[in-house]
Formats: sequence, structure tokens, C-alpha cells
Amino acid sequence: MNTILILLFCGLVASTCHASNMQDFCVADLKGPDSPSGYHCLPSDTVTSQNFKHSFGEPLTVPFNAKLYAASVKKFPVLNGLGISAFRGELERDGFVPVHTHESNEILIMHQGQLDVGILTPERAYVNTLKPGDLTVFPKGLQHYLVNSGKEKAVAYIAYSSPNPRFNFVHQALFANNVSTKTIAQTTFLDEPQVRKLKARFNGSG
Amino acid sequence: MNTILILLFCGLVASTCHASNMQDFCVADLKGPDSPSGYHCLPSDTVTSQNFKHSFGEPLTVPFNAKLYAASVKKFPVLNGLGISAFRGELERDGFVPVHTHESNEILIMHQGQLDVGILTPERAYVNTLKPGDLTVFPKGLQHYLVNSGKEKAVAYIAYSSPNPRFNFVHQALFANNVSTKTIAQTTFLDEPQVRKLKARFNGSG
Amino acid sequence: MNTILILLFCGLVASTCHASNMQDFCVADLKGPDSPSGYHCLPSDTVTSQNFKHSFGEPLTVPFNAKLYAASVKKFPVLNGLGISAFRGELERDGFVPVHTHESNEILIMHQGQLDVGILTPERAYVNTLKPGDLTVFPKGLQHYLVNSGKEKAVAYIAYSSPNPRFNFVHQALFANNVSTKTIAQTTFLDEPQVRKLKARFNGSG
Amino acid sequence: MNTILILLFCGLVASTCHASNMQDFCVADLKGPDSPSGYHCLPSDTVTSQNFKHSFGEPLTVPFNAKLYAASVKKFPVLNGLGISAFRGELERDGFVPVHTHESNEILIMHQGQLDVGILTPERAYVNTLKPGDLTVFPKGLQHYLVNSGKEKAVAYIAYSSPNPRFNFVHQALFANNVSTKTIAQTTFLDEPQVRKLKARFNGSG
Amino acid sequence: MNTILILLFCGLVASTCHASNMQDFCVADLKGPDSPSGYHCLPSDTVTSQNFKHSFGEPLTVPFNAKLYAASVKKFPVLNGLGISAFRGELERDGFVPVHTHESNEILIMHQGQLDVGILTPERAYVNTLKPGDLTVFPKGLQHYLVNSGKEKAVAYIAYSSPNPRFNFVHQALFANNVSTKTIAQTTFLDEPQVRKLKARFNGSG
Amino acid sequence: MNTILILLFCGLVASTCHASNMQDFCVADLKGPDSPSGYHCLPSDTVTSQNFKHSFGEPLTVPFNAKLYAASVKKFPVLNGLGISAFRGELERDGFVPVHTHESNEILIMHQGQLDVGILTPERAYVNTLKPGDLTVFPKGLQHYLVNSGKEKAVAYIAYSSPNPRFNFVHQALFANNVSTKTIAQTTFLDEPQVRKLKARFNGSG
Repeated sequence: MNTILILLFCGLVASTCHASNMQDFCVADLKGPDSPSGYHCLPSDTVTSQNFKHSFGEPLTVPFNAKLYAASVKKFPVLNGLGISAFRGELERDGFVPVHTHESNEILIMHQGQLDVGILTPERAYVNTLKPGDLTVFPKGLQHYLVNSGKEKAVAYIAYSSPNPRFNFVHQALFANNVSTKTIAQTTFLDEPQVRKLKARFNGSG
Repeated sequence: MNTILILLFCGLVASTCHASNMQDFCVADLKGPDSPSGYHCLPSDTVTSQNFKHSFGEPLTVPFNAKLYAASVKKFPVLNGLGISAFRGELERDGFVPVHTHESNEILIMHQGQLDVGILTPERAYVNTLKPGDLTVFPKGLQHYLVNSGKEKAVAYIAYSSPNPRFNFVHQALFANNVSTKTIAQTTFLDEPQVRKLKARFNGSG
Repeated sequence: MNTILILLFCGLVASTCHASNMQDFCVADLKGPDSPSGYHCLPSDTVTSQNFKHSFGEPLTVPFNAKLYAASVKKFPVLNGLGISAFRGELERDGFVPVHTHESNEILIMHQGQLDVGILTPERAYVNTLKPGDLTVFPKGLQHYLVNSGKEKAVAYIAYSSPNPRFNFVHQALFANNVSTKTIAQTTFLDEPQVRKLKARFNGSG
Repeated sequence: MNTILILLFCGLVASTCHASNMQDFCVADLKGPDSPSGYHCLPSDTVTSQNFKHSFGEPLTVPFNAKLYAASVKKFPVLNGLGISAFRGELERDGFVPVHTHESNEILIMHQGQLDVGILTPERAYVNTLKPGDLTVFPKGLQHYLVNSGKEKAVAYIAYSSPNPRFNFVHQALFANNVSTKTIAQTTFLDEPQVRKLKARFNGSG
Repeated sequence: MNTILILLFCGLVASTCHASNMQDFCVADLKGPDSPSGYHCLPSDTVTSQNFKHSFGEPLTVPFNAKLYAASVKKFPVLNGLGISAFRGELERDGFVPVHTHESNEILIMHQGQLDVGILTPERAYVNTLKPGDLTVFPKGLQHYLVNSGKEKAVAYIAYSSPNPRFNFVHQALFANNVSTKTIAQTTFLDEPQVRKLKARFNGSG
Repeated sequence: MNTILILLFCGLVASTCHASNMQDFCVADLKGPDSPSGYHCLPSDTVTSQNFKHSFGEPLTVPFNAKLYAASVKKFPVLNGLGISAFRGELERDGFVPVHTHESNEILIMHQGQLDVGILTPERAYVNTLKPGDLTVFPKGLQHYLVNSGKEKAVAYIAYSSPNPRFNFVHQALFANNVSTKTIAQTTFLDEPQVRKLKARFNGSG
């Protein structure tokens, strides 16, 4: 009788029940276009348990002694439209993450080691030292950095209020471009030799 | 002169005016994919008065002496993106709607007969008896039930804050699956014979 | 043991569990100020079953042979923040509702009688005749009217995608004000005697 | 080293970095369908500086001595999903913009000349005279008009809280349609000869 | 010169700069009322670095061998309006979290041990076994459970797409209330003795 | 009769009509607290035409030969909850606006003179020269600058998709704080002498 009941209720709200997951979840069809609200949904009858599981996999080695493992929508398509994603960050001794912003809010849970974190607003800085069991928040749009201030590897778990957080590093924005050194120097108040030096380091030109 | 005026203003805000219904309404193209914001829009110059009219049609007989008539986006595509839908519910004498949740808010208007309705939250229950002219609200995510407590058929009109409300019945979620009886019993505190009995009734296995 | 469990989970997510209804529902404190998101919430431990029940009560007689019964947030405060409200409309024979707009989407279910409804957009009109079991939709911002075209009273149930729908009648906007007849005539293309006549009828001046 | 860094971070959050502009911006693919959230995004690696620049171009001559220059999503596709658009309006001496509404909020900056503006709500009118350096706001859904009350051309810059503002003129909605004169007259309280006269003027019938 | 610059720009966008953090962040004033959008903001000039740091503190022992550490808005007020929160969960050997829903999306990162997790939808179940480095997602409104299926303690980090996630346990909703056993049995299909037994266990009555 | 009609319809949707402007507009009570959705609304019966008019007033002289005139919510309270604001910017010959971001989308209309504008993303720069009648867009979160590249004063009109845009200047975020020079240098890749020099210039310390 259960089958009948399901089919009846499905028929009630959907022309074909298996094609309807309009709001419970929407596994991204990464081969199609995206839109301001995200990707198209895969047909719900092709969704299996495997779509709900993701493994961080091998660590990705990033400069500055940082490793990052990502679960954002492009790697974990069930996140499409859900407004959340997660990362694991590992900073070796002396590792750090340069000053950057995101267009989503970030919450960070310290798991191991010690991090110095700072939020740099135009009016003041908010600085903390985090140890295991501590958390911090980086509101969207505010410049922040993380520095391993301990004697061992630092490990943190991170979540974002977006399925596709992007990292807007200040040094990349300022120096990895072909805008003239004169203009960058003028609009950042940096000295031209400093700009030229960092353009050279980060593959900028001009 | 009117035609000129319309064309001018249309030209002002759209490359072709007839292709622009971006926000007034967006009749769902149900043959295309859906996305986190809903379906693609049909070309606006194919929209006619008929797209704005829907008939509940024949009643759909549901178990437990309930009949439901639906106007959700899959039956009434103009609802796409509008954040609303409507139903008519009829519960014969002794009819009821089992405990369930929706991912949208629900408002119910009693038209005929008498219903006992209950909202079951983790902290307490909110219980009412509804007669013609009464209304109630079921906030999204909260378990609720409806029982015909009168001597005649009960009729209610219902609206949801979603174009595609879904019914998440507790008994279907718990028993119409192939998760092991042991696990369901453990995580619901039900006795295993009870779980097995209802798995059998609602086509579950395991 | 249940009490312990509840308290523990409550303590987990709230400093005092009874003060926390932040998202399940938020019964409006109508004595306080409103904000762009609605009213403040009443303390959740003062909420009882009665907050979830509203009765349309006595019919309200409106000119033009229309009666309206409302369940919007000011009468049914649990609707605060829920994005929905409901009405019952009765149009006596020859009754009608003048041309107006809302800033929310509207879905209408015909229950009894017959209504001619029209949506007037700048490009075209969408016109339908509704009989019991029919539904229609009035998207926000689009001018629409309802006329009883049957031989008996027409009864409809209506829901809005807002807890506080407002009626923006064209005749009130144009004529119930003290803007000069000349300006109203110029910017509506109506003749001045027509404007003066309707300003007199609807208590305007100028 | 910069290239490596970019690729690593890109790889972190996207399977292919160049295909990912999910939230920074989403240049509309105007050849594809729209949806309740807007148009599909063009592939981000096809976006150039030119996508970020638009020119108002030649003035568009509108009746009633008004000229309007538009930058909405259909002309400036980078606005897709950004919730904003801009216009330049010029009203020659004696020019005006008839009573209308938008489904987005509007802010107007006076640059030159003088405008009389009025917001007509069902309860009252809010009327102001604007001179260079003055601003006003027209909230969505509220009827408003603009009349050049100065002795020279009036120039204003305008922005909307939508990438695709539409103009819902009262005279077009009421008269540029084929609904019967009798029904329009009944539901607007206008006299039938007035309705017939304006239907004739604005290409309506019925 | 910096001070001047800051004051000038502050003066530009705010009557008093220090009182204006309207959108960067809004630390909750937990002593005031909440609203559909959250709590009032503390004055921004009272916010210090300490507002951006929270410590999970002592573990909270929950029945069923589960411990939960919370960082939701009532414990970490800077989360107000940010749409995110975080938890640490520890399940001892044989520990589990009963079937429940949330009104926010959840992402879970396995850190240690092994968990069997299941999502129970009306149509089917999605079941996975998670080991360190695995992630899963529980979309809002869908019933799910977690069972420690390993031989050691399981540890997971969790984030929600809400600053105030609530746990809606099925057993609490169904049994910790005073609705009659007859009604609960009827609307859940459970046998009355089963309902009575669990009402007794979880402090329900009726 | 108009008065009767208004009162009846008001009574229908509001306990007192004059206190109800819940969604048409909500003039900010700047003396009260703000919340994630904005400020409380002033009582609607205290709102007059003057609330809908704002004057830019005297120019505000900003360093670097820029003058800015603002109409954001703190100066023009009717913008509360409307998602829009407007500015006039004047850059004298050689004037510029340093690299910065906003947490809202920005549209800029060139009125007079010539501006070089650049958007600096981590992957590339989008650079344009704007002349009268040109427009550009700065999406939220992306670094951008403006430089007067003409021989006369440049004048532009600007709107934001927020009632309260904030300016997050890179030089203020990086240098106007008390974070140690060593940490700023490490996390921005700037040389320490450069950091010290700009900390001194912009009133930072450490």
C-alpha cells in the first residue's frame, strides 16, 4: 500500500515524482551553465547515496607551507543552492595564509596547534590567538590573515556561507595584473619599486 | 500612438520587449531543467490568458479517506518563482492526514466540517479544533497532523509559501526504506517488532 | 529522562531554551516597532495554542457589494516573518473589486459562483472567467480587477506571498489626494472634468 | 610563482578556474532562457574589460518631450544578478513622465532644471519640487509621476534596485487593452466616454 | 592624515561612524528582542577582538553517548545575521544521534572514527559510512541519523547554514507531548502500546 | 464615500491603518538600534513629503582631490530596507579614489570629464576609460580604483545595491591598525620598510 500512497502524493505535487527535487536538494549539473542562483539540477532519479558523500582526498600543497582540502560545489555538487561549504586547512610550522577576503561569511574551528588571526577593517583590527577548541569568524568582505604562531602544524576546519567561496588575495589583486606600476602605486600609496618587485614576483606586468 | 509609446518604452528596457518577463512573471518551462531558483521561463510572447487559469479537476483519492486537489508549479506553471501555491483538502468522516512536515509555511482556512490539528514541536504541542471560518498556520519544518473530528466531511483551503510544497511524512521517511530494522529502531527508540510491522505495511525492507 | 534530554539539547543551542524561537516561528509583538523584516517576536514561552488559531469573525462590509475577511499579520500575529497570509472574499451579485495592485503575489481559489478577472499589463490583458474549482494568479505589481459575472454570490479564498498584503487601488491613488487636478489630468491623460468628478467622489481635493 | 599560486587556489575551489564566476559576476547570456534569478552566465574566460563598459549612446525620443537613456541588463549584460541598473532621463520644457509604478525601488538624482514629483498612495500623496543636487525615492509598487516645472530642460540620473526595471504606466494598463469599456469603467470608476476616448488614443479596443 | 581620511569617509556614509556597522557584522544584543532577521546589533564601538573569539569549553554530555559542543548565535553572538554556525560532535563507541531534522542545511566533516549516516526521504534513503576525511550533507527538512559504527570514539565537525540551528528530533516531537495516545497512534501508524511506552520514556502524557 | 472605503480596507489589513507601512517603505528611526535587516520604522503617520527628499548639500572635501556627496540611509532615512543608495563624486584634475571594495554592487555613470577605472581580480584586471555617457559596474567584493585621466574635473553619479555602502580601502585596512609590521609584511608580501612607512602615513602603529 505504501507504493500507492507515495505515487498518489507524488502525483499530487509533481507530474513525475522522480524528476522533482526542486527544493529538498539540487545536485549541480556541472556540465551545464551556471546562473545567479547556481547550476541546473541533475535529474533526481539519478541521485544516489554517493552524491551525498565526498572525500577530501590527497592534500593540495599550497605555497607558504599551507595545505588546503576543499569541499565546495565544484567538487561536491550536492552543495548547489545549499549556501554552505567546508574546508580543512593545515598550516605547517611557519605557514600562513596571506591577507584576503571572501564574498561569504567564514567560521573557523581550531583543531590542532595555534593560529594568530587578524581581521583588518578600515577603522581597527580584531586580533586573536586561537588554540584547539577555539573558533573565530571572518565576516564577508573584511580583510583577514592567518599565521601559524605555534611550534607544530596547525589544523583547522572551516565552513563558508556559500557553496562556492572564492579567495580574493590582496597580493594577487594588486600585483598579478598588467595595470601600470604607476597606477597601482598611486592608488595603493605603495612605492613604485615595491610594486615592481611584487609584480615581478607574482607574474604581473606593466 | 499607443503602439509607438509601448515600443519606445519596451526598447528602452529590453532588446525585444516580448522576450522580457524577467520579473513580472515567469511561466515555467517544465520540459527544461530546474535550478535552485526554479525553472526557465517560457518566452513571454507565448503566454496567454490560459496560463493564468488552472482547474483543480477531478479529486485525487488518497488513503485514509483524504482527497487532495493541487495547484503547485508542476500543474500550474505560472507559479514558478512566485513563492506561493494552493490546495483544496477534503477529509471524509474519520479521515486524517498523517504526521508530516513541509519545507514551506502553510496557512489553512477551514471551509466545512471540523478538524483537530496539532503541531508537535520538541518542547510542546499546539493543538486546536477548527470550525468553518477558522484558520491555522503550520510553520515550516514542524511536525503536524490533521484529523477529521466532526461528523461530516471536512473541507479546507490551503496555501504554501512555496510553488512546490513537498510532503515529508514521518511514516514514509521511517518505514518506506531499506535501512536495517535495527538502525531504525535504535535511532527512533521504537521497538524492532513495531519497525518490522510498519516496514511491511509501507513497502520498506531491511 | 526526556526532560533531561530536552534541557540538554536546549542548552546546546540557546542560553535559555524558552526564549528561543528565532526561526521556527516569531509571533509578532504588535505593540513594538516594525522593521524591514517584520515585528519583534513575543517571548516564545508565552506562546500557546491560541496563537496558532484565528477566526475570520464577522464579515466586513465593503462598498461595491464586496465583503472581505482577513487573516494578515495584524490580525493573526503568528504570520510575522512567514511570508504568507489568507483572505476570504465574497462578492454579492453585481459586486466587484476595483483595479488595484499588491506588492505580493496572490493566488485565488474560486469556491462558489462566477468571477471575471483581468490582469492589465502595459502590453496586453489576461482575462479569465472563473468557476468553482478554478484558480488564478495575480503577480505582484500588475493591475487587476474582479467582477461577479454570475447570478449568485461569488466566494473565493485567497492567499498572498506576504504576511501584510496591501491594496493599492488605482482610483484611490489617483483621486483621493490633494495633488492639483491639472497635474493628475496631465500625467494620466484623463480629462480634467473627469478628474474633478472623481476627486469629489473619493474625497480628494485640488 | 604567481601562476602556480593562482592555479593551486583555483584548483582548490573549482574544477576549472576559468569556468567559475558563480558569484563575483555573471555576464548574462542573452541568447539563452531567463529564470527567476536571471540569465545564464557567459563562460568567465570570455569576459573582457568591454563587458564592464556601456555607453548610453543616442538619446531615445519618447512622447511627451521625454528622452530616456537606459543601462539595464538587456543592454548591459554584466548587470545580471547584481540587483541594480541606471538611467539618464531628460525632460524638455513641458515634458513629463506619466503616472506609473515599478517592481523595484528607484532613487533619482536631479542634475539640471526642476522637476515636480509626486508619489500617490491610497492614503495620501507625497509631493516635492526637485532642484539640482536634490534626490528623491520612489518605493516599488507606488504610483508616481514627474513633471518638468522649470523653464529649461530637466536632467536626472536614476538607479533601480533591479537589473531589469519595467515601467507599468497606468494609462497603458487601463487603456491599451481589449477589455470591454464597460468593465474598465466599472472597475476604475471612470465614465465610459472617458474610457472610450483613451482606448482610442492608446490603441485599445473593446 | 589617516585619521582625517577615515573621519571624512565615515562622515560620508554615517552620522557617527562608530555606530555604523550595519552590514559588515552585527554582534547580537541577546538581552533585547529577536526578530525574523535576528537580534539587534550591539553598538559597534563596544565590539572588541573578544567578540570574534569563542571557545567550545567543557563538553556537554548528552544521552546516548554523544557529546556536543556548540557555537551558535546564543553562545557566539557575532554570528547574528551571518547565516552560519559550527559544532563539534563526539560519539562514544555505540553512541548515536537519533532521527531528526533541522531548518538549515548541514555539512559534516569526519575527523576521527567511523559513522554510519542515513538520510530518510519519503521516496528512498541515502546511506553512507564516513571515515576521516569524508564529508556529508544533510539538506534542511530531511530526516537523518548518525550511528557510531566504528570501534572507537567518532569525532566530527559540523556547520549549519543558520546562526541558530535547532534539532527537531522525531521521538521528542512524537512522544514528549500531551496529545492523546490515540491521536498519535492514528497519525503515525504506530501501535498504541508502542506510543504509550515511549510517552512514558520521554515524559509525554495523554 | 472615499473615507469610508479607505477606512474599511485599512481595517481589513491593519489594526490601525496609519501605523502600517510594513512594506511600502520604512523610514529609519536612526535613534533606535539597527538589526541585520536595518532600522526600526518611524510611525507611518509621522512621514511627510520631506522624508522623500534629500539634498546633497555642501561638498565634502576628501584627500586626493576628491569630493563626495552622499545619500545613504544615515543621511536619507527613507532608504532603510530599500536596497539602494546614491552618491555624486567629483575628482579634480589629478584626483583619484584609492583601491577599495564595497559589500554591495556599484554602478557608475560618467557625467563630465574622463576617468580611468580598473577592477583588480585575483586572475586579471578589467580596465576602462570612461567619458560622459559611459557607465561601468564594480561588483561587490572586487578591488577597484578610479583615476581622473582627463584635463578637467571629472563628475560621476553612482548608485549602490545597499542603503549603507561602506568603503573598505586597502591602504586603511593594511596600514591604519596596530598589528605588527612583521605580520603585515609577512601576510601581504610587502617589505617591512614599506609597511612602516605607510603605517606612519596612515596613523597605524606596531
